[in-house]
Amino acid sequence: PLICASAGSMASKCNRLSGPLLQQLLVSVDNVLFDCDGVIWRGDQAIAGAPAVVNSLKKNGKRVFFVTNNSTKTRAMYAEKLSRLGFDARQEDVFGTAYCSAVYLKHISKLAGKVYLIGSKAMAQELENVGIQNVGVGPDPISGGQSDWASVPLDPEVKAVLVGFDEHFSYMKLNRALHYLSNSDCLFVGTNTDTRLPLEGGKAVPGTGCLLRAVETAAHRQAQVVGKPSPFMFECVASEYGLDPARTLMVGDRLDTDILLGTRCGLKTLLTLTGVSRLEEAQAHQESGCPTRSELVPDFYVESVSELLPALQG
Amino acid sequence: PLICASAGSMASKCNRLSGPLLQQLLVSVDNVLFDCDGVIWRGDQAIAGAPAVVNSLKKNGKRVFFVTNNSTKTRAMYAEKLSRLGFDARQEDVFGTAYCSAVYLKHISKLAGKVYLIGSKAMAQELENVGIQNVGVGPDPISGGQSDWASVPLDPEVKAVLVGFDEHFSYMKLNRALHYLSNSDCLFVGTNTDTRLPLEGGKAVPGTGCLLRAVETAAHRQAQVVGKPSPFMFECVASEYGLDPARTLMVGDRLDTDILLGTRCGLKTLLTLTGVSRLEEAQAHQESGCPTRSELVPDFYVESVSELLPALQG
Repeated sequence: PLICASAGSMASKCNRLSGPLLQQLLVSVDNVLFDCDGVIWRGDQAIAGAPAVVNSLKKNGKRVFFVTNNSTKTRAMYAEKLSRLGFDARQEDVFGTAYCSAVYLKHISKLAGKVYLIGSKAMAQELENVGIQNVGVGPDPISGGQSDWASVPLDPEVKAVLVGFDEHFSYMKLNRALHYLSNSDCLFVGTNTDTRLPLEGGKAVPGTGCLLRAVETAAHRQAQVVGKPSPFMFECVASEYGLDPARTLMVGDRLDTDILLGTRCGLKTLLTLTGVSRLEEAQAHQESGCPTRSELVPDFYVESVSELLPALQG
Repeated sequence: PLICASAGSMASKCNRLSGPLLQQLLVSVDNVLFDCDGVIWRGDQAIAGAPAVVNSLKKNGKRVFFVTNNSTKTRAMYAEKLSRLGFDARQEDVFGTAYCSAVYLKHISKLAGKVYLIGSKAMAQELENVGIQNVGVGPDPISGGQSDWASVPLDPEVKAVLVGFDEHFSYMKLNRALHYLSNSDCLFVGTNTDTRLPLEGGKAVPGTGCLLRAVETAAHRQAQVVGKPSPFMFECVASEYGLDPARTLMVGDRLDTDILLGTRCGLKTLLTLTGVSRLEEAQAHQESGCPTRSELVPDFYVESVSELLPALQG
């Protein structure tokens, strides 16, 4: 429930981006951050025109980064996928939550100890890349009875629980996380809170948000979330590349993650309608006159990122 | 966050139950409902004196019922455990959420179809006892990739998802529940929202509330909850036995389930301090002067149900 006040002045938000407005925007930014799922690809298919847009932006001297809440791939895996789909990209340009969580634990939390990881091999790899040992990846089947679960063996070197996408999520993993987190010194980090992972054709499977909510409920604690809309995702890019927020554009398909991140970090924001959020939702937020909801209103929108192409190639 | 108003009159609540007050209470009730975990037993051990209290109540002409949110046992299994620990009880006196969920689906929802069950064999048995077919019990390991999960085979006869305690809870079960619940005609029922299952020695393992929260997050829907504090738990007993709420006492160890159920249903309420809630919590609710919090204040409290014994044997 949002508490709404007077409308204030939001005159020039949520504009269709084309013609002179588009030319003006492109002149005003040096950096473009793209979300991936629903923005430049859907599942294993590139959005038509998206590779040409990314590659043209770079030819026009813009720096392009890929910022995704999806924790199932390493930077190297994303670079391979981008390249395969026709995008000109290096792995250093990719900021997924597997990588960003490792950076967070290493450089913000300054973790001295192991991680109990509810997550993928890709997440384990990114942790190892920054020198953080971890346990937990893979199946963890149940055995014994309640009293065995209550005294489950724990690794005394574990000082953090990290929850990301894990297809092997199970009651036993939930139980292990509860017991690690019963120690209030144990850090608790989640990659993201997206409730579903959208796939091609409007299909979806449960997202990391479901697993994180289960662990939070068991532990009676709230996780520190790394992914969008947490400003840490932008700070992670900005600290490596020295970005000026005022000259950075965030392009995304979700109001509550991509656009909110942009608003919070002082970026320019562009909603593309090839993914989760609809234009009507953005307009309803704008017309509500509610300050909280206004944070979800993008500066601009396009039907697809391919609409940027004429201005870049003209 | 609770909205609190003026104190009103709560003069005679949260009193220590002994002497004439206890005699008076016993005269004023015909029926006594006991929660189980933390009230009459802890794990596999009876609370000292509890069997004598239950048996004496019955000898004094009171009807005694056992009302528990724990979904891991059938009525028959509870009757066996009660008998083994020295309680004089029949299985018809036991109302666990495995049984009550089956009654709910059969007689309230009038379900015509199968249940997709995230739960135990005991829950499956109670469903079958009322003639409801079900699928889902036991391990459901993951295989294939995201697109396989998104098009997971569903049983077209399933018309309800029921979530209770399930040690085989897994990502695949969460995914199956999401896909059944994407059909808005599919009913969604949960046994209870307890976040932990308390065991002997202050230990605990994750409770059904964690699993239910995960499924709710994936489905973007809220379950109808059968267990305490849902009034259905009392109605389930009352409709079978014709209880007068005003002449019924609810005895429990949790303010937010047992005592709240009692308040909502117009029962007399007794908090026992051998389980989860502490006296200070009850007193803080009372002193808050907040109408919402006052629903959590019991009429009476005892250190242990064994304190009822002198009045019953005297």
